[in-house]
Amino acid sequence: MNYPLKQKEKYSKNVIDYRNRGMNLEGLINSANEYYLETDKAVIYKKPTPIGILDVDYSRNRIRDAYFKDKSTFDYNGVYRGKYIDFEAKESHSKTSFPLANIHPHQIEHLKRILRHDAISFLIVSIRDQFFLLKGEDLIDFINSAKRKSIPYSYFLDNCEIIEEKLRPTLDYLKVVDRIYFKGE
Amino acid sequence: MNYPLKQKEKYSKNVIDYRNRGMNLEGLINSANEYYLETDKAVIYKKPTPIGILDVDYSRNRIRDAYFKDKSTFDYNGVYRGKYIDFEAKESHSKTSFPLANIHPHQIEHLKRILRHDAISFLIVSIRDQFFLLKGEDLIDFINSAKRKSIPYSYFLDNCEIIEEKLRPTLDYLKVVDRIYFKGE
Repeated sequence: MNYPLKQKEKYSKNVIDYRNRGMNLEGLINSANEYYLETDKAVIYKKPTPIGILDVDYSRNRIRDAYFKDKSTFDYNGVYRGKYIDFEAKESHSKTSFPLANIHPHQIEHLKRILRHDAISFLIVSIRDQFFLLKGEDLIDFINSAKRKSIPYSYFLDNCEIIEEKLRPTLDYLKVVDRIYFKGE
Repeated sequence: MNYPLKQKEKYSKNVIDYRNRGMNLEGLINSANEYYLETDKAVIYKKPTPIGILDVDYSRNRIRDAYFKDKSTFDYNGVYRGKYIDFEAKESHSKTSFPLANIHPHQIEHLKRILRHDAISFLIVSIRDQFFLLKGEDLIDFINSAKRKSIPYSYFLDNCEIIEEKLRPTLDYLKVVDRIYFKGE
């Protein structure tokens, strides 16, 4: 868990407070995934950070030198309702738009590939204290049609569903996945 | 890629040699996954090794101290024919059996979980220079019924399909997946 210890203590005591302030987006998603795992709703994990190991002290089994590799896939993947689910979480620091430079070109290639194989794939974008589910297909369309370098806030309001922030799960993104990808089932 | 440079050079020249000697099981699977990616057959990756980072030199963006975490999931996952696929590769150093101690209890929990969510999950076991696909369901059954600490070689011969080793893909495990999981489709 990547959120501060104080928050962890607070929520483990079941204090009802629907504003998970202090948890960043990654913390909210990790916490939601733990909830989904505990309640047997889905099995979704954050992938370990890809690193290149340069030096290991084998006597202590410790890494002494390593570097961070570029990500070529998305951070989270797993299985939900028998389907492959694969997504990325991004926080926008701008209040007016989400810069596409936040997404690595290799990640776009990855997205196109998995969509061809019928994956459920999307971005969870945090902007202005709101959380939007941006479908992978919509992201590709936006990149192909609009010649802009960022997605305006208004686009999210008009085209994306809002993900509710609550106590448990902290961020109920599978509820939105149900609405979008499992309509009428 | 984790196989020696000499092998890499050899095979990039399209020399026909069906014995991929010198490549270990991980190398064979990584190479097969690259082939599946290039031919747009599936999108399957090896997960990065999970590590715990203790010290980072931020000025150089380098990890100065880290340790290896225990694996609680399987090494490979991705999407194939719209389904979630998740598996582990194991080499048995014994010629008579595959010791179950090779599989961490957390990995068994992970396997049970994803099978409940309709994942395709299995082990690729290398024993006596042969490669077997051991279905996750069969592994669970074996653990539950036989009170043995290892799976005898004869079990693989009687219950598992053999994965063919060739030039490209080096290890055609999806052919066996087709036979087992997509019968008659």
